[in-house]
Amino acid sequence: MYRMVSIAEAQKTVLNAIEPLPSISLGLSDAVGHILGEDVIAREPLPPFPASIKDGYAVVSADGPGDYDVAFEALAGTAAGQLKAGSVAYITTGAPLPDGADAVVQVENTEKLPAGPDGQQRVRIVKPAKGPGDDVRALGSDIAAGEVVLAKDSLVGAAEIGLLATVGAATVQVRRKARVAVLSTGDELVEPDQETLGPGQIRDANRFMLAAAARSAGCDVTDLGIARDDPAEVEAKFGEAIAQGVDVLLTSGGVSVGDRDFIKPILERQGTVHFGKVCMKPGKPLTFATLDGAAGSSGRGLVVFGLPGNPVSSIVTFNLVVLPALRAMAGWAEPRLRRVHARTQSAIKLDPERPEYHRASLSWHRTGESAGELAAASTGGQISSRLLSMRSANALLELPAVQGVLPAGSLVSALLIDDLSAMPVPEDIPLVVPSW
Amino acid sequence: MYRMVSIAEAQKTVLNAIEPLPSISLGLSDAVGHILGEDVIAREPLPPFPASIKDGYAVVSADGPGDYDVAFEALAGTAAGQLKAGSVAYITTGAPLPDGADAVVQVENTEKLPAGPDGQQRVRIVKPAKGPGDDVRALGSDIAAGEVVLAKDSLVGAAEIGLLATVGAATVQVRRKARVAVLSTGDELVEPDQETLGPGQIRDANRFMLAAAARSAGCDVTDLGIARDDPAEVEAKFGEAIAQGVDVLLTSGGVSVGDRDFIKPILERQGTVHFGKVCMKPGKPLTFATLDGAAGSSGRGLVVFGLPGNPVSSIVTFNLVVLPALRAMAGWAEPRLRRVHARTQSAIKLDPERPEYHRASLSWHRTGESAGELAAASTGGQISSRLLSMRSANALLELPAVQGVLPAGSLVSALLIDDLSAMPVPEDIPLVVPSW
Ligand code: NWS
Ligand code: NWS
Repeated sequence: MYRMVSIAEAQKTVLNAIEPLPSISLGLSDAVGHILGEDVIAREPLPPFPASIKDGYAVVSADGPGDYDVAFEALAGTAAGQLKAGSVAYITTGAPLPDGADAVVQVENTEKLPAGPDGQQRVRIVKPAKGPGDDVRALGSDIAAGEVVLAKDSLVGAAEIGLLATVGAATVQVRRKARVAVLSTGDELVEPDQETLGPGQIRDANRFMLAAAARSAGCDVTDLGIARDDPAEVEAKFGEAIAQGVDVLLTSGGVSVGDRDFIKPILERQGTVHFGKVCMKPGKPLTFATLDGAAGSSGRGLVVFGLPGNPVSSIVTFNLVVLPALRAMAGWAEPRLRRVHARTQSAIKLDPERPEYHRASLSWHRTGESAGELAAASTGGQISSRLLSMRSANALLELPAVQGVLPAGSLVSALLIDDLSAMPVPEDIPLVVPSW
Repeated sequence: MYRMVSIAEAQKTVLNAIEPLPSISLGLSDAVGHILGEDVIAREPLPPFPASIKDGYAVVSADGPGDYDVAFEALAGTAAGQLKAGSVAYITTGAPLPDGADAVVQVENTEKLPAGPDGQQRVRIVKPAKGPGDDVRALGSDIAAGEVVLAKDSLVGAAEIGLLATVGAATVQVRRKARVAVLSTGDELVEPDQETLGPGQIRDANRFMLAAAARSAGCDVTDLGIARDDPAEVEAKFGEAIAQGVDVLLTSGGVSVGDRDFIKPILERQGTVHFGKVCMKPGKPLTFATLDGAAGSSGRGLVVFGLPGNPVSSIVTFNLVVLPALRAMAGWAEPRLRRVHARTQSAIKLDPERPEYHRASLSWHRTGESAGELAAASTGGQISSRLLSMRSANALLELPAVQGVLPAGSLVSALLIDDLSAMPVPEDIPLVVPSW
């Protein structure tokens, strides 16, 4: 009944159906992980005054080496003093250069002299300034007044927080992130804290896993619990999601062809099912629907992903389709998973019918004079119920639908699903010292 | 006065001085981003019963094709029934295989027949099971009873949360993360929300940036505000950090050679300064000290990093030295930044005296039949006051201390400081379809 769409078509359909969420105002420390909804502009130049780069002496560079009176101290956080030629001022790093001075001589290039009879501090400039501007940061040399320090649509990380603070953006406009609800479906499911399993029971894994994945993407998550395989119960949970005004509902299970698979029929009744079958392994029954005008707060309709029940299928389809959608809602200009290339470490049997997303652990590897490459270690048996195949996986290898076995050492495309800055380090990666 | 140590020695000194924090018990949903303090073992096999992989009919595979009575329904979440040869049972995905049955025929390979006169449901098995076990997950085929599903010292991500839920680990032992306090020092500093800057003033950038970086590493952060350049005020702030029982104190500023640089003398009085000068650019005055027995709650002493005041120096030294320390405290077996190799996109002038950590943005790039490589785009002017050089940077290029200019196209080592799964995509990365 549902046409089998390609993964590319599925991703396109989803990204076309959603739009970035509106901007909200956040305090600067809460902006991490958000996309800016506005250009952030510096009101003043940085430094706002010519500033010393060193601890030492502010000088008139033309004065050259020799013994000088230390006329005064120019300390950070004070107004710039006035220096007369023929004298110097003690200055600390970051202090405003006195008017009249044009350079700084670091303290290491000077020698303290005994004070004069009147208590006058004196110093010998041993190695003079090279010329005007030496060891001085010119006004506005780091940031010009009016400069866009962070453009709309950029992602805020720690360094960007520093830039926001620098320019006085104590609050900032950023895109809101999606509010997500998670629902598991199935008569066989019990909570993780149930010690002993009854006949036919298994513990609910998907809800906690999908909630964690959505939270890692910065989303607020509402836990809708488990719905039994009963249309009324499932519909009541949908109602709860709508009442709570979430933007996205993630269900898992109940999207296949069985008698007790109620998700698709309910979505058809309540909204539009855009696709119900995707040519991919795992994840074939992945379903995407929109319920127009359903969502409370945003009024832009509820977006529903009916993820397959097999745990691997649910988290793989989350990464391939849901995560790009959450990123797009959060304002990412490039929401798709990042593609790299990797060398397989072992032979892999291919699926003749559906492109397969083989879970793997990438690590950096370098032989001889090569530029280095990513080595892909398979996580083992790939059946979609075996969640161990996702353990420590940081990439999905994009394997073609071909009959046969891909030999070890093949170059494949891989999509990053985790942070490579925590990737395994199976071998010592030596420092490359370039020579030319 | 301080010996200039190498960055490798500095990192080693720090990692030697600290140890992993104790384990705490957390609810499974709070464990994300933590390192496991124990092996997590499956009490039961998964599936806990032979389970159907498909919606269809449970059969005795030797019965072969033909028309059969549907004896009963085997639904997910119910106890396994008893099937007699010569009949079949309707079964849903995930349901226990009835005793007596040995395979499943998916519904697509069957034809519903009209019910018998007695209302008996009947079905035609068109394409029979290939043999025993067809479309059945054997008991324990995904996880064996007693299997270690997650080893001590593994990092918990979303998939690992799913595994914890699966095996019923509703609470779990994980390493605690460090509690971190941040303190800025300097008479010139004002808060980011100060609209107009007075003479000699700049806004405090480091505190917010370092707090954000520590939070991104999962740490709880205490904000100690700004201390004026006054030893009594700085010491009072240290006292506050100790009273609050934080594990790590990050200061910025006041570690250089100026008259008003009080951090090192105070640390010497209160504890042990392990190094006070590192041969690196930026970050030369980086200081590391331990205050034995100072910390309240843990009793393992307060670890203090005196970071340089220049904003870039503070965040670069955070990444190179503090972050590995926070990771080691959190139990990471490999806490160091991940090293990769990258091709420079432009010529870079080297520093003849100190190895330089050049901020860059890595992206994936592939030409011809190559295995793909990382292209490193410089973030521009690298003076340590120019925080714009950290904007969008995801790596630090490890440049040698050599006189000269490194030509564009050079292969260099790079340390990852951000998530490559958000890296820029300057060019379309095509899917590689392997052929062999
Ligand atoms: N005739 C026919 N039958 C078919 C297919 C077909 O083509 N034809 N396709 C396949 C494929 S093909 Mo695949 O992704 O390419 O591997 S998924 C897939 C599957 C999807 O079925 P669905 O309706 O989504 O899920 P259900 O509820 O049946 O559960 C599925 C499994 O997952 C478990 N499970 C559920 N929820 C949770 C939870 N929260 N935590 C832990 N485990 C959970 C649950 O116990 C069960 O074992 O049906 C199959 N059956
Ligand atoms: N004679 C001599 N002088 C020297 C050196 C030397 O060898 N000899 N070394 C260099 C180097 S060399 Mo480098 O890392 O390799 O580039 S740092 C470095 C520097 C470190 O000095 P420090 O004492 O740590 O910091 P100070 O408090 O002086 O501030 C430093 C700057 O940063 C700003 N600043 C402070 N805090 C904040 C904040 N929170 N937010 C925003 N900006 C802030 C502050 O305004 C000032 O402009 O001193 C230099 N002076």
